[in-house]
Amino acid sequence: MPDGPVNADARAAYYAGIAQKHMAPLWESLHNLVPRQPASRCLPAIWKYENVRADVLASGELISAEEAVRRVLILENPGLPGQASITQTLYAGLQLILPGEIAPSHRHTQSALRFIVEGRGAYTAVDGERTTMRPGDFIITPSWTWHDHGNPEAADGGEPVIWLDGLDIPLLRFLDAGFAENYPTATQPVSRPEGDSAARFSHNMLPVRYQPGGGSSPIFNYPYERSREALDQLYRHGELDAWDGVKLRYVNPATGGYPMPTMATFMQFLPAGFHGRTYRSTDSTVYSVVEGRGTARIGDQQFDFGPRDIFVAPSWQPVQLGALEDATLFSYSDRPVQAALGLLRESREA
Amino acid sequence: MPDGPVNADARAAYYAGIAQKHMAPLWESLHNLVPRQPASRCLPAIWKYENVRADVLASGELISAEEAVRRVLILENPGLPGQASITQTLYAGLQLILPGEIAPSHRHTQSALRFIVEGRGAYTAVDGERTTMRPGDFIITPSWTWHDHGNPEAADGGEPVIWLDGLDIPLLRFLDAGFAENYPTATQPVSRPEGDSAARFSHNMLPVRYQPGGGSSPIFNYPYERSREALDQLYRHGELDAWDGVKLRYVNPATGGYPMPTMATFMQFLPAGFHGRTYRSTDSTVYSVVEGRGTARIGDQQFDFGPRDIFVAPSWQPVQLGALEDATLFSYSDRPVQAALGLLRESREA
Amino acid sequence: MPDGPVNADARAAYYAGIAQKHMAPLWESLHNLVPRQPASRCLPAIWKYENVRADVLASGELISAEEAVRRVLILENPGLPGQASITQTLYAGLQLILPGEIAPSHRHTQSALRFIVEGRGAYTAVDGERTTMRPGDFIITPSWTWHDHGNPEAADGGEPVIWLDGLDIPLLRFLDAGFAENYPTATQPVSRPEGDSAARFSHNMLPVRYQPGGGSSPIFNYPYERSREALDQLYRHGELDAWDGVKLRYVNPATGGYPMPTMATFMQFLPAGFHGRTYRSTDSTVYSVVEGRGTARIGDQQFDFGPRDIFVAPSWQPVQLGALEDATLFSYSDRPVQAALGLLRESREA
Amino acid sequence: MPDGPVNADARAAYYAGIAQKHMAPLWESLHNLVPRQPASRCLPAIWKYENVRADVLASGELISAEEAVRRVLILENPGLPGQASITQTLYAGLQLILPGEIAPSHRHTQSALRFIVEGRGAYTAVDGERTTMRPGDFIITPSWTWHDHGNPEAADGGEPVIWLDGLDIPLLRFLDAGFAENYPTATQPVSRPEGDSAARFSHNMLPVRYQPGGGSSPIFNYPYERSREALDQLYRHGELDAWDGVKLRYVNPATGGYPMPTMATFMQFLPAGFHGRTYRSTDSTVYSVVEGRGTARIGDQQFDFGPRDIFVAPSWQPVQLGALEDATLFSYSDRPVQAALGLLRESREA
Repeated sequence: MPDGPVNADARAAYYAGIAQKHMAPLWESLHNLVPRQPASRCLPAIWKYENVRADVLASGELISAEEAVRRVLILENPGLPGQASITQTLYAGLQLILPGEIAPSHRHTQSALRFIVEGRGAYTAVDGERTTMRPGDFIITPSWTWHDHGNPEAADGGEPVIWLDGLDIPLLRFLDAGFAENYPTATQPVSRPEGDSAARFSHNMLPVRYQPGGGSSPIFNYPYERSREALDQLYRHGELDAWDGVKLRYVNPATGGYPMPTMATFMQFLPAGFHGRTYRSTDSTVYSVVEGRGTARIGDQQFDFGPRDIFVAPSWQPVQLGALEDATLFSYSDRPVQAALGLLRESREA
Repeated sequence: MPDGPVNADARAAYYAGIAQKHMAPLWESLHNLVPRQPASRCLPAIWKYENVRADVLASGELISAEEAVRRVLILENPGLPGQASITQTLYAGLQLILPGEIAPSHRHTQSALRFIVEGRGAYTAVDGERTTMRPGDFIITPSWTWHDHGNPEAADGGEPVIWLDGLDIPLLRFLDAGFAENYPTATQPVSRPEGDSAARFSHNMLPVRYQPGGGSSPIFNYPYERSREALDQLYRHGELDAWDGVKLRYVNPATGGYPMPTMATFMQFLPAGFHGRTYRSTDSTVYSVVEGRGTARIGDQQFDFGPRDIFVAPSWQPVQLGALEDATLFSYSDRPVQAALGLLRESREA
Repeated sequence: MPDGPVNADARAAYYAGIAQKHMAPLWESLHNLVPRQPASRCLPAIWKYENVRADVLASGELISAEEAVRRVLILENPGLPGQASITQTLYAGLQLILPGEIAPSHRHTQSALRFIVEGRGAYTAVDGERTTMRPGDFIITPSWTWHDHGNPEAADGGEPVIWLDGLDIPLLRFLDAGFAENYPTATQPVSRPEGDSAARFSHNMLPVRYQPGGGSSPIFNYPYERSREALDQLYRHGELDAWDGVKLRYVNPATGGYPMPTMATFMQFLPAGFHGRTYRSTDSTVYSVVEGRGTARIGDQQFDFGPRDIFVAPSWQPVQLGALEDATLFSYSDRPVQAALGLLRESREA
Repeated sequence: MPDGPVNADARAAYYAGIAQKHMAPLWESLHNLVPRQPASRCLPAIWKYENVRADVLASGELISAEEAVRRVLILENPGLPGQASITQTLYAGLQLILPGEIAPSHRHTQSALRFIVEGRGAYTAVDGERTTMRPGDFIITPSWTWHDHGNPEAADGGEPVIWLDGLDIPLLRFLDAGFAENYPTATQPVSRPEGDSAARFSHNMLPVRYQPGGGSSPIFNYPYERSREALDQLYRHGELDAWDGVKLRYVNPATGGYPMPTMATFMQFLPAGFHGRTYRSTDSTVYSVVEGRGTARIGDQQFDFGPRDIFVAPSWQPVQLGALEDATLFSYSDRPVQAALGLLRESREA
C-alpha cells in the first residue's frame, strides 16, 4: 500500500517502463474491460434494398462470378468499418450470380448460410447434392463442406439471382480457427439426386443407422414454402407473442439444435398492426425482410423496413418491431455461441 | 459477366460509391477473410519472472489494492498492443495483494482463474466461502459469482502474494456479453466454512440432490498438492506422451467438463531430458511455469523458461517443449470455446 | 476351502437351512443367472390378421368401448402366457372402436403407441388436441399425457377402426413404476385445433421458446403418407441395405431421439425379390405389416406374412426378412431401453 | 357396441377361443396392468448379519471359491422366491473368499458392485489393475470388464473376507441382454500398478486425451476413508436433511453420472437421535449398514438395524430412517434405470 500520494509523473514513468516489457496497469482500464453492461461498437443500421440493388447488379459488370470466386458486396456495419463485419461476430453480404455463371467449389471452416432474396434458376451444391434456390429459402453450407453455386440457365433465358450470405467470418478470425481449400474442379460432381437429404431427414424420421456428428444439420435447404405455412398455421391457431409475433427457429432435425454450431436462424411473422414490446438480448441479429412493411426501433434509431431490406440489431440494444402490413422476417444471430458459453442473457420488457 | 476488361478507375469509382452505403467488394479481401490456415496476429512471447517481479512489487507503492479494485499488471501480447490481450481471446495479468489489503467484492460475467505464483497468507472468497491460496493452487471465480481477495496477515508479519489472473475478457468484449456489478460492501460475508466445497464435491461423490447448472465447477480450489501428486504417480507408472509428457486437465467433478465454459486448464510434468515432439492446435495457450527449467520452441522462436515465467503459444503455431530439469507447467487456453463451436483442430507431428 | 468331498446330503441340509433365511447358493445357478448369451423365454410368433380380425370385431358384440375403457385383445407371446406380454418388455394389443363410441380419457406412466391397421373416422386426443387416425399412421400418447379415443361417425355411416396398441406395460410392471388416473369426464376438452402440434414441430423448425422436456416427442401423429413418401424417395435414390432394405426410424424432432423414452419405432421398405441377410439384436421387435407379402425367418421358424399381420422377433434370435411383393413394415422395440443402459448389442452377418 | 347383455357363458367361450390364438381380453385385467400406483411384489426385509454370518463362513466348508467360481449366498427377497432377486431389478449376495483362494477371472454384461463387509487382505482385479479391499470400500466391476478376486495371504496368516455383491442380474435377465465369457486363465495378468486409476481420475483432473465411453466410471475403488471423511465434514458444516441426514452419491468423475449405468450408490450419515421424515421413491433400494444402530420403518414394517445388516426398501413403499447411535449406511438402487427412462418419481412427506 502506498505511504502517500503518488504523483502523476511517477505513474507515467512507471507506465512507460512496464510498457517496454509489454505490461499495462489494469486499474487504468478496468471499467472498460469489465463494463457494467455491453456497449457494442456495432451500430444499428439498415440497408434499403432499393438503394443497393443497382450496385449489386452493377458488380456483374465489373467481375465474373468465377473470377471473383464469390461476387459479393459485403454489408459493413458503420461502427466496424473495414472489418467485413455486420456485427462483431457475423458477416453479411449480397451475392449475385448471373445466368450461365458458376461460383467455384471450395470449403472452409467458416459456416455459411444463404437466404434467397430474388431470382430463380440458381442452385447451391453441398457435398454432392444440388438444391434449387427459391426466394425465401434458407440454405446452409456447413463448416468444411464442399460447396459451389451455379445459375445454369442460358444467359438470355435466365434471371440474375441474389441472395444474402451470412457467415461467421469475424468470429473465426477472432478465434484464429479459419482453414480453407479449393476443390480441384470448378464444379463438384453430383453424387446424389436433388431432394435426397430432404427425403432422408425431413419427415420426422432418420435413417436407422445415421449418427449425428459435427453439429451441423444434415438437411441443407429449408424451403420458404414450408416455413411460411408453419407460421400461417400458428397465427391462425391464435399464437401471438407480444414481443416476437409468431417466431420459429430453424433446427437440425437430427438433434433439435441449431442448424450450424455458430449461427441461429429464425423466421417470424408480424401481423398488420402489430406493435411489439421491447426486448434486448446479448446475441446480435441480422434481419432480412421477406414480405411486408413495418418499423424497427433499435436503440435510439427507428427504421422503416420493406421487402428485401436488411437491418441489424447489436447486442443488448433495445429492439421493438412493428408491422404496417403482414410482414415476414428472416433473421440470424450468434445465439448458439452465446448459449454454448453460458453467456446468453435476455430481457423482455413488460 | 463483364463484356470486356473493366478499368481500374471504374472499379475505384464503384468501390468509393458503395463505400458510401457501407458496402465493400468481397473479392478484394476474400483470401484474407477465408485464409488457408490461421495466421494469428498474436505472437509467441515470454515474460521472465525475474524481469517483471520488481515491477509487480512496485505497483504496491503506486496504488492500494482497494483503490485499484484489482492491482494487476496486464501482460499484453506484443502483437496485440493496447488490447489487454495475451491471446486474441484471453487476458493475463499478475496481481499483487499485500498484507493487510483487500481487493473488494464484485462479480462479472467474465470467468476468471487465479494461479498462485508466490507468497502465502492470502485468500479468495467465492459465493460465501474463502479458500487459502498457496503457490501452485488453481482457483476459479466462475462467471457472475461474487468474489473478493484478501491478505489478512498483519503488515509486518505477512508476505506479498502474487498470482496470475487468467480471464476471458477479450472474448466477452468481442461477444459484447460483459456485465458487472459491485457488492455493497468491500468484503462479502462468509457463509460457509473453508473446505466446504471440497468436502461436497471433491471425493468422487456429490450431494444427492445437487444438479449441475451454469457449466462451472462447484469446487473452486484445486490444490497444487493433489495435482502434483497425480502427475508424480502417473510418471512413476510409466506414463509419458511424446508430445505432452504427463498432462492432466482440470475438470468440473460434477460433469467431467472444463472447470469453466470458456477456459481449459492443464498441469503437465516434463521429466529432465524430455524433448517433446511438435504439435499445433487452434486453441492458443498461456503457460505458467511452476517448477523446473526447460525450453519452448513456438513458431520460429525459442524460449528458455524457468520457475514462474509465463509464455504464450498462439493458435496453430508449432510448439515443442523440452525440460532441462524436471519441470511442471500450468497452462490455460480457449479450448472449450473452440470445441463447443466445432472448431478445434489439432496436429501432432510424428 | 473344504478339506475333502462334501456329501450331497450335507449340501441339501445346508441349502434347506439357508433357505429359511431367504438365502440360496449362487454356485448352483450361476450359469443360468449369468448366461453365455441371451436365451429368451419369448418365442418367435405370428398373428395372421385373417385369423384374428373376426375375433376383434366380435369383441364389439361383447362389451362397449366405454365399459371396457379400452376394448383390446392382447397378443400374448406363446412363451409368456398369462403375462399380457408380446416380448419380455412390451405389450401389444388390437383395439377396436366402433362408430359412435368413445374410449374414455385417462393417463398413465406407461407410454403408448397406436399403429392404425384398418378403418377411418376415428381420432385420438392427446393433451387437448385431436388427430384423425388413418391406416398406416403412427400415433403416440406419451407417458402421463391425458388421452382418449373416439369414432364420432354416426353408427350407420362410419366404419369400425382397428389399431395396434404398443405399450411398455411389462417393463413398467417390472420396474414397479406404474401410476394411472382417470380424467373427470369421458372426453377431455379440445383446446387446440387439429394439426397444431404438426404446425409447431413438423417443419424442421421449433417455436423459439420451446424447451424439450420429458423425453417424448411434441408431435403425436406421424402420418403414413409422409413416411411412405420418404421410403419411396430413398428407394428411388438407390438406397438399399442388405439387411434392412430401406429403413427409417421415427424421431422426436426436438431432440433427434426416439419419440418416447422406452420404445423405438421404425418403418421399412423391402422391394419385391429382396432376400435380406441375417441380423440379431438384443432388442426384441414387434412387426406390423402395412403392405405387401414376404417371409420372416426368426430363429428356427419361418413365417409367411401379408398385410396387417403381426409378428415378433425375440432378443438375439437371428432374423432374416424377404419380400415376394413390395412390402412395408412398421415395427417397434425396446431399443431405447437397451441403449440408455449400455446394453444394446447387434450382429449383422455377412 | 353390444345390443344387450352378454351372458357369462358367451364371454367364457369367447375367451377360450381367443386364448387358442394367444390372445386375451384386456378389459379383464386392465386395472392390474395399469395400476393406480406401484404395488410391488418385492417385500421389505432385513438380513441380520449375526444370523447369516455363520452360514456364509460355513459355505467355505462346502465348496472352494474356484470351484464355485463365485462362492456367494444370494439374498432372496421373500416376495420373489427362487428368482435370485432382492428387488425386482437387483441382485444381492454375500461373497466369501478365504486366505489362499481366488475367484477366477471372467466378464459379463451384468454390472457388479462390491461393498466390503469384513476382513482384510483380499483384492479385486479389473482390466489389469488390482485394488485392495477394505471394509467400507465401494468397488465396481463394470459391464464387460474382466475381473477376478483373490485373498493372497497364507492360509494361516490371513482372514476370511466377506463382501456384499450387488448386480443387475434380474434386470438383464428381463431385458434378455446377458452375455458372459471366461478368461483363459484363472487370474488375469496385472498390467497396471495399484492406484493407477485413482491417480488418473481421482484428483478432479483427467488425462488430457481421455474420452469417457460406455458410461461406467474409470475409477473402480471408492475407499471408505474418503467417503467417511466427506460425510463427517459436511455434518460438521451443519448439513442435515430432514429425510436423508447427510447423503452423498458416488459418481463417475469423468461425467458426474452414476458409477455404472444401471445402479446408483449412496453413502449417508445419520447422527445419533436422528428421526428422519418419510419419503418414497420408485427406485428400490438395498441398504448395507456400515456403522451404528438405528431403525428403518419400511411400509408397515419396522426393522432395528446394526452394523453389517442388510435391508431392502421396495419401490414406492414409505421409508423412514432413524439412528440410535451415529450411523453410516451404504445403499444401492436402480435409480439410473428409472431416471434414464423418465420414470423416476419421488415424494418427500412434510
